[in-house]
Amino acid sequence: MYQLYDYITSGNGYKVALLLHQLNLPFRYHETDILAGATQTPDFLALNPNGKIPVLVTPEKAVLWESNAILLHLAEGTAYLPVAPAARFEVYRWLFWEQYSHEPYIATSRFWLHHPDAARFQEKIAERRPGGLKALKLMDDHLAARAYFAGDTYSVADIALYAYTHKADEGGFVLDDYPHVQAWLARVANQPRHLTIEEKTKFRD
Amino acid sequence: MYQLYDYITSGNGYKVALLLHQLNLPFRYHETDILAGATQTPDFLALNPNGKIPVLVTPEKAVLWESNAILLHLAEGTAYLPVAPAARFEVYRWLFWEQYSHEPYIATSRFWLHHPDAARFQEKIAERRPGGLKALKLMDDHLAARAYFAGDTYSVADIALYAYTHKADEGGFVLDDYPHVQAWLARVANQPRHLTIEEKTKFRD
Repeated sequence: MYQLYDYITSGNGYKVALLLHQLNLPFRYHETDILAGATQTPDFLALNPNGKIPVLVTPEKAVLWESNAILLHLAEGTAYLPVAPAARFEVYRWLFWEQYSHEPYIATSRFWLHHPDAARFQEKIAERRPGGLKALKLMDDHLAARAYFAGDTYSVADIALYAYTHKADEGGFVLDDYPHVQAWLARVANQPRHLTIEEKTKFRD
Repeated sequence: MYQLYDYITSGNGYKVALLLHQLNLPFRYHETDILAGATQTPDFLALNPNGKIPVLVTPEKAVLWESNAILLHLAEGTAYLPVAPAARFEVYRWLFWEQYSHEPYIATSRFWLHHPDAARFQEKIAERRPGGLKALKLMDDHLAARAYFAGDTYSVADIALYAYTHKADEGGFVLDDYPHVQAWLARVANQPRHLTIEEKTKFRD
């Protein structure tokens, strides 16, 4: 069975849980409290020297980290990763864009806002706001003429972008001005074998 | 011919130029001055709504952006991207790690230090320093027992990490304490058809 080291509110971990569930690959969820230092212990650093969740240990004991790399790896040969070069490039493009131009703004703002010391992050949250608004606008424009991010079908690009976008309000980003994003969120949530972020912990050890 | 929109000191653009050169794919270099706003014009935003270089336009007029996605796309079917799932995962992992845990520290510090208004970035540069040191240490540890980042051979993972690591000193990061990184930099620079970052502009329009 797959072993997923993850943190309850992490969208990066949720991406992996959602794809595993949609691929019908059973996994065990291991809560790893990043606020309590659980990703900085010698045991955890032996798994992932980068000291971050998610970490996925495969049934063959391969240790995988970097959420979007895990998505590409698990999705190979499935309907969630196109084979055609142009569509596949789109998947790559949005996965990298998500990590560089979306997550550091939208996910990080949400993390700071819910941190026990949220008050000391106020300036940083304000600093990250324009980048988050820019990311949502770009997504909305892209989705104006498309149902999904890459090609014509649901793929790991949608999974990666859904993870933090559907919780953007918890980072202070209201989605009212992004109707195409809202419609896309509903399409993603209506995919077969969808799993909510709250449901990932039901596979807890 | 490929058209590369790039900025003279950009490592992200250099990655693409280096791979194109190693694949023997001729390209035209189009200098795009990010400090003068050349990536925010209507014409440029029509190419890349994200407003960033590099942008690569293929001979078939496909418009590609996100440097590491371009590397994966161009390298498919070549010796620079392994087919074996385990080695291929390693490439994915390091490409995402580079964009999230390396570039924002090492490349961004270099960019700020050479900015005309460098003085106003002093606090930010100091803030990013620990992340850069952590990235270099992780690379050095990884390379202690390996010649290259993914599998046993030179790949796009090495190209992506070389781009800003070999100029880390310009971001205030001295490489003396990272002997394995230094040896790897030399191995990369000795690959067939290597191109230096300075040489990319010789294909200028």
